[in-house]
Amino acid sequence: MHPFDQVVALEATADGRLRGHTSDLYWNMVSPFGGATAATILNSILSHPQRRGDPVALTVNFVAPIAKGELSVEPRLARSNRSTQHWSVEIRQGGQPDLMVSAIAFFGIRRPTWGVTEAAPPPVEGPEAYPRPRASMPLPWIEMYDFRVAHGQIPSPIGQSLTHVWMSDRQPRPVDFLSLTAYCDMFPPRILFHRPTPVPLGTVSLTIYYHADANEVAAQGAEPVLGVAQGQIAHNNYYDHHGQIWGKSGKLLATTQQIAWYKE
Amino acid sequence: MHPFDQVVALEATADGRLRGHTSDLYWNMVSPFGGATAATILNSILSHPQRRGDPVALTVNFVAPIAKGELSVEPRLARSNRSTQHWSVEIRQGGQPDLMVSAIAFFGIRRPTWGVTEAAPPPVEGPEAYPRPRASMPLPWIEMYDFRVAHGQIPSPIGQSLTHVWMSDRQPRPVDFLSLTAYCDMFPPRILFHRPTPVPLGTVSLTIYYHADANEVAAQGAEPVLGVAQGQIAHNNYYDHHGQIWGKSGKLLATTQQIAWYKE
Repeated sequence: MHPFDQVVALEATADGRLRGHTSDLYWNMVSPFGGATAATILNSILSHPQRRGDPVALTVNFVAPIAKGELSVEPRLARSNRSTQHWSVEIRQGGQPDLMVSAIAFFGIRRPTWGVTEAAPPPVEGPEAYPRPRASMPLPWIEMYDFRVAHGQIPSPIGQSLTHVWMSDRQPRPVDFLSLTAYCDMFPPRILFHRPTPVPLGTVSLTIYYHADANEVAAQGAEPVLGVAQGQIAHNNYYDHHGQIWGKSGKLLATTQQIAWYKE
Repeated sequence: MHPFDQVVALEATADGRLRGHTSDLYWNMVSPFGGATAATILNSILSHPQRRGDPVALTVNFVAPIAKGELSVEPRLARSNRSTQHWSVEIRQGGQPDLMVSAIAFFGIRRPTWGVTEAAPPPVEGPEAYPRPRASMPLPWIEMYDFRVAHGQIPSPIGQSLTHVWMSDRQPRPVDFLSLTAYCDMFPPRILFHRPTPVPLGTVSLTIYYHADANEVAAQGAEPVLGVAQGQIAHNNYYDHHGQIWGKSGKLLATTQQIAWYKE
């Protein structure tokens, strides 16, 4: 079993909830890698017997730092019709369970329609053209992935956080909605591009829009995806970024944005 | 009382919920203007006695089309600490109340910190330099606002949805978090830029990040804000856009993204 499948794994409990478990392999600074937590949230819906269709929108609010150990995950189908579903999911921890993560999601059955892609992937070389970066901080989860940075130095000599980065699971694993979700949270904190001295920080809210159905995502195989991200603003304790995840043949697989807290 | 303050108004009911009401003035095609609904959601938190700090992140999922009449709005404080709060809000309607809107929000007390604005406002003239556009569809809520389009024709002769638009309440009203929320949902549907024939469509999920505290928003007075938006993709029933709301002196007040459903 791939370690990523282990970290998002869920098991049904007697009271109708789901039990997950943090993994030391996907540990961040003081809590799990947020992308793995978001993928666990998504997995609780994807594996639900009432789930219909593919994820279209997911927003995950990180309420409190998850501690090592068991997670209680509770997906709730809020409303369903023939081709769309609204879900909410909570992760709780502890004896008197505290809310740790709160999420809402929208699933839909996609049908072929007219379409257009206005965004364009950046003109970069293949992943093998770029070296692995030295991690600015030795965090366990970073070791689980292969990053090849085509653009975007930390710190930025030009005061810009624009990033082009190839991302893949270090131990190859076919891309699916779960890993795509994790890739959306892999961009280094934007303020590191601007400030040489790290400060305490953490993602508060992460939103992902999925622009491919399960078959289109599966067509990616285990090949690296190309991530693009840029911050827009950092102001009085909160900074944002927006990003894109590009797949094979210039296919836009997902768009994402997040806002994070920082100190000072 | 300004009509916008009427459409977002809430009154406490005996069972501890809040009662709102749709307004014909802010009606859209088959349901209320989504920006007014999102502002009503935000208002249920802003006016809550336990609320602390200013909105930082709001995600609103539009579950089903709201009908004309009363709304039952239920804000719930999910978790609170000294300087941050997580909320969830639901809007329900009907005798056996059905879920119509589901939202999660994050509030925080902002303190002065280091900051940077990487994004830049587009180089446009003041609002008076541009004519009012002819509304492509005669929707009641559009009459409540003044739009001056600096860039972005519908349909686009160049297959691009990039929009620069000055926006203000037609009957002047000082900008606050409520109207800022509404402005974030005022961009015309992106697919109208590409397709001459309108098709059924509707926003599924809207996310807003607020980058100013209450005082900074109040400094805007009743002057027009400058909205920027562009679609990234329309594919198999869903299209997205991301946007920015710029205030006086090149201050980025909010960033936003949304995903919407479309037919065919």
